[in-house]
Amino acid sequence: MIERIQHIIDHKTKPIGSLAMLEEIAAKICLVQQSEKPELKNPTMLVFAADHGIAKCGVSAYPQEVTSQMVLNFLNGGAAINVFCKQHGINLKVIDAGVNYEFDPNEVLVDAKIAKGTANMLEKPAMTEAHLINCFEKAEIIVKELHKEGCNVVGFGEMGIGNTSSASLLMSSISGIPLEQCAGKGAGLNDKQLSFKINTLLEVQKKHDQPTNATEALQYFGGFEIAQMCGAMLAAYDKNMLLLIDGFIAGCAYLCAFNINPAIKNNALSCHLSDEKGHALLLNYLGEKPVLNLGLRLGEGTGCALAYPIIESAVRFMNEMASFENAGVTNKK
Amino acid sequence: MIERIQHIIDHKTKPIGSLAMLEEIAAKICLVQQSEKPELKNPTMLVFAADHGIAKCGVSAYPQEVTSQMVLNFLNGGAAINVFCKQHGINLKVIDAGVNYEFDPNEVLVDAKIAKGTANMLEKPAMTEAHLINCFEKAEIIVKELHKEGCNVVGFGEMGIGNTSSASLLMSSISGIPLEQCAGKGAGLNDKQLSFKINTLLEVQKKHDQPTNATEALQYFGGFEIAQMCGAMLAAYDKNMLLLIDGFIAGCAYLCAFNINPAIKNNALSCHLSDEKGHALLLNYLGEKPVLNLGLRLGEGTGCALAYPIIESAVRFMNEMASFENAGVTNKK
Repeated sequence: MIERIQHIIDHKTKPIGSLAMLEEIAAKICLVQQSEKPELKNPTMLVFAADHGIAKCGVSAYPQEVTSQMVLNFLNGGAAINVFCKQHGINLKVIDAGVNYEFDPNEVLVDAKIAKGTANMLEKPAMTEAHLINCFEKAEIIVKELHKEGCNVVGFGEMGIGNTSSASLLMSSISGIPLEQCAGKGAGLNDKQLSFKINTLLEVQKKHDQPTNATEALQYFGGFEIAQMCGAMLAAYDKNMLLLIDGFIAGCAYLCAFNINPAIKNNALSCHLSDEKGHALLLNYLGEKPVLNLGLRLGEGTGCALAYPIIESAVRFMNEMASFENAGVTNKK
Repeated sequence: MIERIQHIIDHKTKPIGSLAMLEEIAAKICLVQQSEKPELKNPTMLVFAADHGIAKCGVSAYPQEVTSQMVLNFLNGGAAINVFCKQHGINLKVIDAGVNYEFDPNEVLVDAKIAKGTANMLEKPAMTEAHLINCFEKAEIIVKELHKEGCNVVGFGEMGIGNTSSASLLMSSISGIPLEQCAGKGAGLNDKQLSFKINTLLEVQKKHDQPTNATEALQYFGGFEIAQMCGAMLAAYDKNMLLLIDGFIAGCAYLCAFNINPAIKNNALSCHLSDEKGHALLLNYLGEKPVLNLGLRLGEGTGCALAYPIIESAVRFMNEMASFENAGVTNKK
């Protein structure tokens, strides 16, 4: 299969390899779909939102209520992810994985609430084992539903004040990279606040045993949105979807999923290198090359939505470009 | 104006600066259009094509007839630039600046032929002064027509076997960067062929006096498509359009235009960092940060077309995202 795909790519009317990353993306999608005529169907962005017990400890530049306020902003269509999904015809679903707020029913909102925020991991594990199992179960249901609707490409984004703290701890514990290199300024800490955040997270590390695997790490460090993303990624892989991974936090959920099932890498595209400090190291650790490098540090799945037209271009050149033979163009001397 | 624009950007529902390059692009377009509600109207890609006398000397991986064959491919809709323009609703115009072929009339084709290819610059200047003036005149007419049609954003791409040779010589002579650092593998030379290309171009350099400005350099080194791109960029700036610059060769045309009128920088976006060797150095010399970095080395304006949705996203977030005030979201502590 790969030889046939590479032959088609190499005989499009362009110098060999000259579409570079687009060619790699096209080949990847063809292999996932086992097809020379790949298709992106019902593209959907899943934005998982939840609150974090640790948010009360001064690790974020924004107060906890911004999680629910931003979810309401998503539901009202006013956030960056709304604008970019609308631009590219991507369906948007916002998953309440555990926001500290009671939302009215809304067609964009999926209720998958585990609890109104995780426990404070400075005191105890962010979630119980039952919580974690519940996260994976609810995520699987959401993805199965998507698959039934004919979706074969799904983006993963998030919102949750304090969640770079969880993500940094997950990254450090799974990759073995020291926490200081995994923790960054999140939504906008200054140097002094970052140093406070790092000290707080080092305390959290001391409080818990070294996790022996990703599920234990998720239980200790949370959050509900990260655990649900991880579960949803695994479920999407099982349904052979193409997975679009956003920035640092989605990347840490992907790290957990990769830890549980390394084959997921065949179906995943890292869409954007975030400006958040640990992300370059994370992508390097995972051996992933990001599609975009725009310096964003917003989350919400914005990196996926912005990369989507590039991914679509990869599919389109496979399907629509002429070959040297068809176009009567002389190939390389 | 800039303070007002920055205020609007900073009060969108996102952490300050978190849309990074999109914010810079949005601010630039707002300043060009002197508007808080920027608009992209009738986006158009101009692909300038021409042949080069030097192409017969073994400086390219492809034979000269590929220029006309690829132009026919553009006219038939089979090339990468066709696919990406169609994807994003970008009008495509292919300009015959000097291809060694007689094309039948076609609605996509603009006849601006100067001659059937430049002279061999190993022997004499690639073009006469009259040729160069003619390039600028014809380019201005094309851009004025576009402007009349309501276009305010124009991309610049090219096709011309041998034109990385012209581009490298232009770059070296204007920037003062040694030729060896400006010349790369083009459409796919191997190391030995590259070394032959560099030696050939060093001979060309010896043959001519050091040009004293960009117009002299264009006359010595060509090509017709690069000179017309340069003229079209200057004309588009005069009409206050937004200019989208593709990869290495379009970048060298932009270098010439910048040399003639540095104010053009206010209206230009470098869309893509090419894999062609000199391009990173060129962007660094110009102080330009590319929107995309996909490793492409195809030309045709493909970098512009692929970057277009990102540029559109910048315009859309300005116009469509809610502010903290409107959305009832708490701003930073």
